Amino acid sequence: MAQAPLKLRDEQAKTAYLNRLRRIEGQIRGLEKMIDDDKYCIDVLTQVSAATKALESFALALLDDHLGSCVKDAVRAGGNVADDKIKEASQAIARLVR
Amino acid sequence: MAQAPLKLRDEQAKTAYLNRLRRIEGQIRGLEKMIDDDKYCIDVLTQVSAATKALESFALALLDDHLGSCVKDAVRAGGNVADDKIKEASQAIARLVR
Amino acid sequence: MAQAPLKLRDEQAKTAYLNRLRRIEGQIRGLEKMIDDDKYCIDVLTQVSAATKALESFALALLDDHLGSCVKDAVRAGGNVADDKIKEASQAIARLVR
Amino acid sequence: MAQAPLKLRDEQAKTAYLNRLRRIEGQIRGLEKMIDDDKYCIDVLTQVSAATKALESFALALLDDHLGSCVKDAVRAGGNVADDKIKEASQAIARLVR
Repeated sequence: MAQAPLKLRDEQAKTAYLNRLRRIEGQIRGLEKMIDDDKYCIDVLTQVSAATKALESFALALLDDHLGSCVKDAVRAGGNVADDKIKEASQAIARLVR
Repeated sequence: MAQAPLKLRDEQAKTAYLNRLRRIEGQIRGLEKMIDDDKYCIDVLTQVSAATKALESFALALLDDHLGSCVKDAVRAGGNVADDKIKEASQAIARLVR
Repeated sequence: MAQAPLKLRDEQAKTAYLNRLRRIEGQIRGLEKMIDDDKYCIDVLTQVSAATKALESFALALLDDHLGSCVKDAVRAGGNVADDKIKEASQAIARLVR
Repeated sequence: MAQAPLKLRDEQAKTAYLNRLRRIEGQIRGLEKMIDDDKYCIDVLTQVSAATKALESFALALLDDHLGSCVKDAVRAGGNVADDKIKEASQAIARLVR
């Protein structure tokens, strides 16, 4: 399957991604506690902005990896797959920007 | 304390906010599972965009409540507090936009 | 008309807003020249990001003024108009964030 | 020069990009007129959001073209240039997202 190679990400990258997501999960649980403890709106909003930025950074790191692996490999292999991969990446970028 | 009135949010609003955050926490855990299961980057990115948008909507709902309660109350009370609250809200909005 | 008081913005604020917009207009014309001169995509994108951020800052300044004048005045006047103004501001903020 | 091939963009693409930018320039001039005519803040903000979104769409179209031409060509040529181009594109994407 083109979309699920045996080694899409090496173990080191996978661990790093998981750690980032677990930190974000911790931020979301922190937000739940803030709401539960009736914390001030503005302080909650500051933490929401931090979590949103952490998610964006995670996405940008993943996208960078994707361009440097899947998209690069597809372009090297040539043919229509390359154009499909580029189109697919552009659409993912658009969803992140908008 | 000006920033922690007895009833900052009513119980209904609090429950609704907590449910939204728990859904987002579920989305983040779903992302961890996707990384763990070596899911395709683009599919992971699609879910990141969904979680980011859910966080933004949560923030906008909270901000709307804040303007309609804390800021409104401060303006009614008059004086410098009102201007401080508006400045504080503007800064929170700027953090969400940038 | 509630939405067009005689002095919505003072002359100084108006001049400052106009100067900001004229600088942004200059940035857009700079972009046209870059495309016309076949400049490198990445350099064009850098300038697009700068113009986008300038527009966002303009919007945030205008919104801050709006909260501190129209919304504040409406809240002081009391009644339904205050809630309408806050709702309207929240919707404008949502359009900026999304 | 790697960054300025004879035909970075064909004439048709160039015309399309210029037309988009001229429409955005028109939107900015429209904003200047709105400020000059003391238009209501919320109506100005709605137009700012529209102009910002038009700039984002312009950037996404340019980026898509860039990935499908410069980046693709660099990957095909192989070597370090490919990785540099991908890194450069990732950084441009990050500037658009943040």
